[in-house]
Amino acid sequence: MDKIRVAILGATGIVGQRLAALLAVHPWFTVVALCASAESAGLRYDEAVRARWRAPGEIPPSLAKTVVRPCLPDVEARLVFSALESGAAGPIEAAFAQEGYFVCSNAGDHRMSPNVPLLVPEANADHLALVQRQALGSGGIVANPNCSTAGLVLALAPLHRSFGVRQVFVATLQALSGAGYPGVPSLDIVGNAIPHIPGEEDKIETEPLKIMGDQTHLADFRISAQCHRVAAAEGHLLSIAVELAQRPTLEGLVSALSSFAPLRGLGLPTAPAFPLFVHPEPDRPQPLRDAGRGAGMTVTIGRVRPDRIFDYKFTALVNNLVRGAAGAAVLNAELAFRRGYLH
Amino acid sequence: MDKIRVAILGATGIVGQRLAALLAVHPWFTVVALCASAESAGLRYDEAVRARWRAPGEIPPSLAKTVVRPCLPDVEARLVFSALESGAAGPIEAAFAQEGYFVCSNAGDHRMSPNVPLLVPEANADHLALVQRQALGSGGIVANPNCSTAGLVLALAPLHRSFGVRQVFVATLQALSGAGYPGVPSLDIVGNAIPHIPGEEDKIETEPLKIMGDQTHLADFRISAQCHRVAAAEGHLLSIAVELAQRPTLEGLVSALSSFAPLRGLGLPTAPAFPLFVHPEPDRPQPLRDAGRGAGMTVTIGRVRPDRIFDYKFTALVNNLVRGAAGAAVLNAELAFRRGYLH
Amino acid sequence: MDKIRVAILGATGIVGQRLAALLAVHPWFTVVALCASAESAGLRYDEAVRARWRAPGEIPPSLAKTVVRPCLPDVEARLVFSALESGAAGPIEAAFAQEGYFVCSNAGDHRMSPNVPLLVPEANADHLALVQRQALGSGGIVANPNCSTAGLVLALAPLHRSFGVRQVFVATLQALSGAGYPGVPSLDIVGNAIPHIPGEEDKIETEPLKIMGDQTHLADFRISAQCHRVAAAEGHLLSIAVELAQRPTLEGLVSALSSFAPLRGLGLPTAPAFPLFVHPEPDRPQPLRDAGRGAGMTVTIGRVRPDRIFDYKFTALVNNLVRGAAGAAVLNAELAFRRGYLH
Amino acid sequence: MDKIRVAILGATGIVGQRLAALLAVHPWFTVVALCASAESAGLRYDEAVRARWRAPGEIPPSLAKTVVRPCLPDVEARLVFSALESGAAGPIEAAFAQEGYFVCSNAGDHRMSPNVPLLVPEANADHLALVQRQALGSGGIVANPNCSTAGLVLALAPLHRSFGVRQVFVATLQALSGAGYPGVPSLDIVGNAIPHIPGEEDKIETEPLKIMGDQTHLADFRISAQCHRVAAAEGHLLSIAVELAQRPTLEGLVSALSSFAPLRGLGLPTAPAFPLFVHPEPDRPQPLRDAGRGAGMTVTIGRVRPDRIFDYKFTALVNNLVRGAAGAAVLNAELAFRRGYLH
Repeated sequence: MDKIRVAILGATGIVGQRLAALLAVHPWFTVVALCASAESAGLRYDEAVRARWRAPGEIPPSLAKTVVRPCLPDVEARLVFSALESGAAGPIEAAFAQEGYFVCSNAGDHRMSPNVPLLVPEANADHLALVQRQALGSGGIVANPNCSTAGLVLALAPLHRSFGVRQVFVATLQALSGAGYPGVPSLDIVGNAIPHIPGEEDKIETEPLKIMGDQTHLADFRISAQCHRVAAAEGHLLSIAVELAQRPTLEGLVSALSSFAPLRGLGLPTAPAFPLFVHPEPDRPQPLRDAGRGAGMTVTIGRVRPDRIFDYKFTALVNNLVRGAAGAAVLNAELAFRRGYLH
Repeated sequence: MDKIRVAILGATGIVGQRLAALLAVHPWFTVVALCASAESAGLRYDEAVRARWRAPGEIPPSLAKTVVRPCLPDVEARLVFSALESGAAGPIEAAFAQEGYFVCSNAGDHRMSPNVPLLVPEANADHLALVQRQALGSGGIVANPNCSTAGLVLALAPLHRSFGVRQVFVATLQALSGAGYPGVPSLDIVGNAIPHIPGEEDKIETEPLKIMGDQTHLADFRISAQCHRVAAAEGHLLSIAVELAQRPTLEGLVSALSSFAPLRGLGLPTAPAFPLFVHPEPDRPQPLRDAGRGAGMTVTIGRVRPDRIFDYKFTALVNNLVRGAAGAAVLNAELAFRRGYLH
Repeated sequence: MDKIRVAILGATGIVGQRLAALLAVHPWFTVVALCASAESAGLRYDEAVRARWRAPGEIPPSLAKTVVRPCLPDVEARLVFSALESGAAGPIEAAFAQEGYFVCSNAGDHRMSPNVPLLVPEANADHLALVQRQALGSGGIVANPNCSTAGLVLALAPLHRSFGVRQVFVATLQALSGAGYPGVPSLDIVGNAIPHIPGEEDKIETEPLKIMGDQTHLADFRISAQCHRVAAAEGHLLSIAVELAQRPTLEGLVSALSSFAPLRGLGLPTAPAFPLFVHPEPDRPQPLRDAGRGAGMTVTIGRVRPDRIFDYKFTALVNNLVRGAAGAAVLNAELAFRRGYLH
Repeated sequence: MDKIRVAILGATGIVGQRLAALLAVHPWFTVVALCASAESAGLRYDEAVRARWRAPGEIPPSLAKTVVRPCLPDVEARLVFSALESGAAGPIEAAFAQEGYFVCSNAGDHRMSPNVPLLVPEANADHLALVQRQALGSGGIVANPNCSTAGLVLALAPLHRSFGVRQVFVATLQALSGAGYPGVPSLDIVGNAIPHIPGEEDKIETEPLKIMGDQTHLADFRISAQCHRVAAAEGHLLSIAVELAQRPTLEGLVSALSSFAPLRGLGLPTAPAFPLFVHPEPDRPQPLRDAGRGAGMTVTIGRVRPDRIFDYKFTALVNNLVRGAAGAAVLNAELAFRRGYLH
């Protein structure tokens, strides 16, 4: 088949770089445009990002010499990935969608708009249909959630399906890369931890209810989040306590997590066979050791045990840059393609 | 007055060093014996600890040349501070108490024994009377709690008194010094975080119920804890959500915390005027910036805000080596002295 | 005596904060003006720096409510400390000096100007006289060197005096605070080290030659520097190898270092009794443990041993924010006062 | 061809794990025995190392169930890799060699023995012939150097060959993994740097002279080393200044480094096409970004520039676990095989 032509908006930032790295080797998509702010526009991609390249490996050779363009909806592409910063992202993504581009966005601006699917394919693939209500013809916007939300939703999805989630406490220990680059000053975090990430708790407490609701109503459970920044590079830890409508056995709970495979058979290149891996060691997951599992798309879960207040508690690790950002957007696009939205 | 003669058991470890530093300048107590395991016994204190001194400042000159003794109950002291490791501590502390010494212990062994006061003077000073049931004449054992428990209890005590605590979720981010020395290998924690501290969650979930109960019954509320190790040096963060019997206003809650001063008037040298400080900045407390408040005896609280599931949530920082260990034992001894137990 | 009225330029940055902290408790000087860029001018000092206060302890209460002014030479002060960034500093400091202020600068702009004393009082107190050649009446500029230079010069000064320095290799491991705030992004340095600090090596290779020369000629020896950034908070390590004109014994070398006390008898408040401390332990100095020695004004030296190429090698630690910046400027002002330049 | 049967001594440590990971996928060698100390002997390999596995990826499935054996010379293998700790290694390796095994050792014990080749194939492949003087028939010992030495020798080898090395200053910033596991306590290194690694400087100052000498005489130049431990995980930085017999142009020097390829044509699987990579960016190499180059076998060099005392200075990064340990031993074995020593 001919590869689908794609553009990346915000291609020079830390998430945009990850998108570039993932898409440069993607079997279905081919990058034809790298777009960024006025500072970078006109430079070759390698010139623009050389001093701030933070993705693993080298700048993809196939993109290195591509001249960066401004974020204008005149690219010859069908599909657009947006790694723009929230705030700037909103109007630019809307402009692309109006012009008929299918936009897979990592930004926060449109996430809670009623007609924008806030999509985690393993959890709410059916929400993709919402995009039709945007009434933009071939255009449309699909959003992936906040990086911590992505991990939380994947951990809760099989539990909600099987046992009904009622209440959730979650405490996060979030990696530095979640704040972008330059992001957190080293003087603030070396030998330290910070119990505050602006805006993050509200996202974690609300986005999952949209994702895990039906297409028109929020899910009917409550989440309380406390967020912390720690000096890990990549991978957010989420320590979760959950109250369920029906209390399974510990084995039943672990089985629901580890057998969760709702995308099986779809053949989406970025989807791991099992999105959740339950680690048997007592001190896992850990950012340094588990963030790479499933090329960053697998959420690692550990320490599943009964809770004294709710039913069970456990810890999950989500790769914030892949499953929580760039990989999430790519998986959303793969689902859209498979469902016929990109023809 | 003549100073009270004291001994330190386990004087060479990280908590024992802090005890030595605190007691070397104490207005009521004078250190006459430094006891440790067979490896150190017979060495001068400075020889024994030089390569592993981790307390601030230098080895106290008044103690540097003291020859370390074995942990035998033949010291000419009235009061004994124990920084022994749990396991080893139990029988040694019992032997000292049997011989008539008053033992203030930081170890876990006797904490949950019914007749041993598990003491946080601001929270349960009356429990000190339990020591009489040990029926050891002038001897006895008083324990301070686990380092995280110490912070949790101080934060909850004024809330329980004023509003009644019903349920508590707490997630901890604990500093490296909590694991002793050599403790956590650097390869495990640089650029990482570990969601597991063996035995810690159980202590945090049970010790506060003894402290905040009356002298014979556990308090009737529930605690759920999730513990994490992070690459901070000193100071444990506790992010707490609390359900109360009576819901105060936010101002009422903050006022109960910041005005808490139950030891006022007792003149205990190690007690800060106010054991809790509510920090106004949105990103505090932080280990690096707040662990030293009140010479390590003040718990810093921040981010007090309503919770979506329970009533309120907030973050507390406790200096694990001072308020959570060495300073706690010293404060217990000061209370015991003031109440006439050391004559 | 009446205290001398002083102003701080660049009072909101990381060095300006240190100056504020040091000067708020200074026995000779009293801060009457805090000056900074347009963003901060008009704000109260505590409002301007609250979110970025990085000096130990709290914002000095005596300065917290002072309204920050622009950096204009209309302050009612005799003495001006400049913590401005190099580049901006040059013309502003010149304007103050023209108006008759005595300026003690931490910035790089005027350091190598022939008539500006580049002053380390223990090394070249006589250079202070150069200020008269500026022919500005009561005004003038005195500079302290780069933070690493300060440590290097202090270590070399007694050796040059006693044995004659011929050649010096120095490798530095520099702390994060040397880059200011926000400074080094955490993603660049957690779990990493960077062998490059722009412009630093050239300063270390040239500034000492001016300081250790006479008032008109550079010293006649050669320095080669290699600089690295590491994830320590405060305190630059310098590993130094030195070739001397006359080779002393190891004992002679250590004695020259540890007995060095050229300011004895001057009664300068910020000068430690001995500016160099030779640490006996084999693994010292270390930033975390030795940066506070002598309130940050003492350079700690360790590992003095023979070298296979030059004569000796050793490691020095200089507190980059105190001895290498704020404290250096204050000590220069104290010397100027003692020598009658501030009347 | 049939794969050569190999054993690993010290298979459970941090270098032994790397050997296991490298050899599990090696095209010429097949691991038939994993040997370790008495604590591990009798356990399955995965049981023995699970809690301390620190190599990238998972425990090799092909080795996970292998039962660990004691380090006795009764394995059915031709080739033995030793990752034993220095001290223990000496007699064990000698016993294996006596019994006819060909031993490739990472330990320090035999490195400086006259008849033991201290081998870096790119630098002194001809030294391999020394093994014949051991007169052990099919048995023999070949050693690879200290991890920092490995990087230094690779950087110096092309310069020595082309221009003649006369004098070398080197300052190292060494990663945590160089100290093994558990190794450096986190309390000693988080937010810190340590200017001391016992025994290291002496190795760096002497081993290269054996490697770069002829088979019977040490090379006739001088090295001075200063070593530091920093909080990086993997990859030692070496900042090097070098005096040469003939001074090339900067371009000539860079060309000598980047074109160095003495093993070309030998087809050794672990040898990179070019063992040295000269990085063009001004702030490279860095442990976090460059340790993986060439699967850990390529030394990255940066900041090549003239020096004020010697001729040139530059910084090199060597992966201490691969090029400096496990990979070095494997490359030595490959050379031995190619040269016919393993038939």
